[in-house]
Amino acid sequence: MNGSVPHWIEELRALLGERLHIDAETLAAHAADKWHASATPEAVLLAETAEQVACALRLASERGVPVTPRGAGAGYVGGCVPVHGGLVISVAGMRRIIELNPHDGVAVAEAGVITADLQQAAAAQGWFYPPDPASRAESSIGGNIATNAGGPRCLKYGVTRSYVLGLEAVLADGRILRCGGRTHKNKQGFDLTGLFCGSEGMLGVITQATLRLIPLPPARAAVCASFPRFASAARAVQDVLSTGHLPSAMEITDRFTIASARDYLGSDALPEAAEGHVIIEIDGHAEAVRTELPTLRRVLAGAGADVIRTAETEEAVEAVWRLRREFSYSLKATGLTKLNEDIVIPRSRLVELVEFCEGMQKETGLPIACFGHAGDGNIHTNIMLARDDEGRERRAEADALIDRLFAWVLDHGGSITGEHGIGLAKADWFPRAVGKVSMEVHRAIKTALDPRNILNPGKMGLTP
Amino acid sequence: MNGSVPHWIEELRALLGERLHIDAETLAAHAADKWHASATPEAVLLAETAEQVACALRLASERGVPVTPRGAGAGYVGGCVPVHGGLVISVAGMRRIIELNPHDGVAVAEAGVITADLQQAAAAQGWFYPPDPASRAESSIGGNIATNAGGPRCLKYGVTRSYVLGLEAVLADGRILRCGGRTHKNKQGFDLTGLFCGSEGMLGVITQATLRLIPLPPARAAVCASFPRFASAARAVQDVLSTGHLPSAMEITDRFTIASARDYLGSDALPEAAEGHVIIEIDGHAEAVRTELPTLRRVLAGAGADVIRTAETEEAVEAVWRLRREFSYSLKATGLTKLNEDIVIPRSRLVELVEFCEGMQKETGLPIACFGHAGDGNIHTNIMLARDDEGRERRAEADALIDRLFAWVLDHGGSITGEHGIGLAKADWFPRAVGKVSMEVHRAIKTALDPRNILNPGKMGLTP
Repeated sequence: MNGSVPHWIEELRALLGERLHIDAETLAAHAADKWHASATPEAVLLAETAEQVACALRLASERGVPVTPRGAGAGYVGGCVPVHGGLVISVAGMRRIIELNPHDGVAVAEAGVITADLQQAAAAQGWFYPPDPASRAESSIGGNIATNAGGPRCLKYGVTRSYVLGLEAVLADGRILRCGGRTHKNKQGFDLTGLFCGSEGMLGVITQATLRLIPLPPARAAVCASFPRFASAARAVQDVLSTGHLPSAMEITDRFTIASARDYLGSDALPEAAEGHVIIEIDGHAEAVRTELPTLRRVLAGAGADVIRTAETEEAVEAVWRLRREFSYSLKATGLTKLNEDIVIPRSRLVELVEFCEGMQKETGLPIACFGHAGDGNIHTNIMLARDDEGRERRAEADALIDRLFAWVLDHGGSITGEHGIGLAKADWFPRAVGKVSMEVHRAIKTALDPRNILNPGKMGLTP
Repeated sequence: MNGSVPHWIEELRALLGERLHIDAETLAAHAADKWHASATPEAVLLAETAEQVACALRLASERGVPVTPRGAGAGYVGGCVPVHGGLVISVAGMRRIIELNPHDGVAVAEAGVITADLQQAAAAQGWFYPPDPASRAESSIGGNIATNAGGPRCLKYGVTRSYVLGLEAVLADGRILRCGGRTHKNKQGFDLTGLFCGSEGMLGVITQATLRLIPLPPARAAVCASFPRFASAARAVQDVLSTGHLPSAMEITDRFTIASARDYLGSDALPEAAEGHVIIEIDGHAEAVRTELPTLRRVLAGAGADVIRTAETEEAVEAVWRLRREFSYSLKATGLTKLNEDIVIPRSRLVELVEFCEGMQKETGLPIACFGHAGDGNIHTNIMLARDDEGRERRAEADALIDRLFAWVLDHGGSITGEHGIGLAKADWFPRAVGKVSMEVHRAIKTALDPRNILNPGKMGLTP
C-alpha cells in the first residue's frame, strides 16, 4: 500500500484512527474462515464499539464500499470472506460480558464474546446457555447469531435463535437498531431479532446481544449403545422418542466413522463389530436422571443394541463427549480431506440417507462418513477427499458427489444446511433449495435494508 | 348492497363464485375480534384453498383493495378488524390436519385448524404440540402463528415460533411463498418462517403450517402454594429456578384475583389469608416427576409458603388448571369489565410491578388484578373498569391508567405485549415501545413485501 490507497480508506482513518488497519498481516488474517476460499480486504476495522461500526458503515454506505462483517471467523461456508475486497469490520475484539443476571434469566454480551466463555460464566452462577456448536470454544456469540448456530443439544433446547431476546445491530447506512429486549416474551411488532438471527451479515452488523439463560440442570447422564446394523441404531432413535423421552442430545455414528475412531483412538474406544453407534444424553435433577436411565437402556436393548454403556458421573459423561468430539479428528487422521456437509433430513429418512451414501461410495470409491444429531435429522455427511493415482485430490468428483447428495436431500424433504448456513459454499444451491418466490422475498428484504448492497455482497447468491 | 356494489367485488365474484360473501350477516360476523373495536368489511372470502387466497390477493393488489386476513377471530387487540373496509379473507374454514407424522416429529395443518384439535390429534399418537394459549379451544394455528401466541408452557417449551418449521403464505400480490420445510433444523437463508410468525397479517396470509412435534411427556404433576405476602410468592418463583428446576409452567396470582376466585368458586378454592398464590407444573417420565416433587415442596416452604398442595394424578393436575382458567371468569364475575393487558417485565421486577399497581389502585380506586406466567415475567395485568356514580364506565380513567402502566413497563425494561400483539389496541404505544429505527425497519420490510399497503392496513401504527 502506498499513494494508491483509496480515498475512502484515508477518510475512514481520519474518523477511526488506529482502529483501522491496512498492514498486509492484518489484511491476510481477515481473508477467510474455515472454508477453503479466501479474498484479501483492502482495510480492516478492529471495532471496539457500536459507534465505530456505525461510523464506518455511514461512510461505506455513502462511498459504496463493500463491507464484510466478521466475528471469530470460525464459519464453515466462507460467510466472512470479503469476496469484493473493501472493508472487513471485525467485532472479535468486542468481548465484554456486560451483564449476567440470573434474577432476570438474562445475559448481555458483546458480539465478540466466545460462546464457551459465556457458557462458563453462566454455569459458574448455576445458569445455562444451551446452544453448543462444536466450535463453541473458538466461535463468538455474534457469529453464532449470524448463522443461527446449532449443536447436539438443539434436540431438547433449540437453536441459538431460541436464546436471543434482543439485539443491537448496525444497519448498512450506520443507523443503530435495537430490537427485542430483555423480557423472555415479547410480541412487539415483527420479529426483527429473529430476522437478524441467521442473516449471515447481510442485513446488519450485530454488535451486542441480550440472551436468555435457563436454570442449569443439576445432573446429566449418558447411555452409549452399539448396534450390529445401522438400521437398528436408527430405530433406537425413534424408539427413544416415541416412548416419551426428550434427551438433551441424541447422536448417531456410521460404520466408517466407528472404524476411523477405533484406528485413531484405540480398539477399546468402540466395539469392533458395530455398524451403528448411538449416544443419548439426558439431563435434569439427579434423582430424575437416575430413574430415567433403566427405561432408556431397555428401549435401546429392545431396538437391538448389543453393547450398552452408561455414564452416570459428570466425568464419565464428559468422557463420552470427548470421544464424540474425536470423531472429527479420527476422520482427519485417515489422511483424507474431510468435506463436511451439514445436511438435514426428516428423521425417518436416516437409514435411507446412509444407504444412499453407501451406494455413492461403492460407485465412486470416495468414502463417505455420516455422523451427527440424529434426533433432529441433522447428519454431518463427510465426503472424504481421496487422491488419485497421481496423488491429486479428487475435488471435481467430490463436488459432483456433493451435487448428487444435495439433490437427494432436497428431493427427500431435507435441507442442505442445518447449522453452517449458505455463505459462499452453498450459494449455487440456494435458489434450488428455497425456490423462486423465496429468492424474490430474500432480495426484497435485502434491498429494503441495504439498498446499495454494501453488506457482505456476493453471499447466498442473492446479489452479485 | 345493491347496484352500488364496487366493481372489484363483481370481479372477485366472477373469479371465486360462492366463496365470496356480501350478505349483511356474514359481513357483521367478520367485523371484530375479542377487542371492542369493529368495522364492517365490504366482502368476505371464506377461503378453502391457498389458490383462492392467491386469486383474491392478485386482484386486490391490482385494484388497491384493503385486505384483512382472519383466522378464528380470537385475538385481543383488534388485529383482524377491517378498519379500512374492503375484503376480509378468512381461512377459518381451512381446517384439515393434512399430516401427522411422529417418525419425522411433524404435523402439517391448514391455517384454520383449531389449536386444541391439533394438540389432541398429536396426543392421541403420544406426541405433543406444546404452545397453549388460553384461547386454544377457539383460536387457530394460523392466528397463533400470526400473533406468535404464548401460554403458560412457554417457560419450558417456548412460544409458537419454536414449533413452526415451515409455512405456506400468500403474499400481497398473490405469489405463494413456501418457506422453511419439514426438517427440525434449517439454516437455508433468512428466517422468513420466523418473520411471518408474529407478523399480524401485515406481510401475507398464512394458509398452511408445518409444525414440530415433540414426545409427549408421560406424566406431569403440580404443586400449588399460598403465601402470606406476594413478595414471598415472587421469591418462590426465583428460588425454584435458581435450584435448577425448569417447570413446564409457573403461574402467580395476586390478592385481588384470589379474593375474586374465592367469591366465585367458593371459599375452599384458595386459602383465605393468601396474598400470593403460585402454581408450578412439572412434566417428564413418571418416576422423574415423582422424585422432583419433594425438592419443589422444600423450596416453596423455604420461601415462606403456608399452604402447599400437590397434584400427582392427571385428574388432579387438570383440576388445578381448571381453577387457574377460572381466574379470568372470577374477575368477570365481579361485574366489572376487565381490560387485560399482557405486559411482560424482567422476572426480577414482579414485586415492583404489583406494588406499582397497588399504588395506582389506591390513587384511582380502579381495582387492578395481576396474574399470569411468572416464570417469564408475562403478567396479565387486568384493569377492572368500575362505573361512576351515574353508572358510566370509567373508560377515560382506565385508559389513562393503561398509559401509566405501559410507561412504567417500558421504563423498567419490559414489553407492552408478550402474547396478544400490537394490532389496533396498542398501535399508539408501538413507536415508543420499539423506537425510531425499529419503526423505520418495520416500514421498510412492510413496503418491501406489500408496496401498495393492502394487507391489514391501519395496524401497528405502521401505515395509515
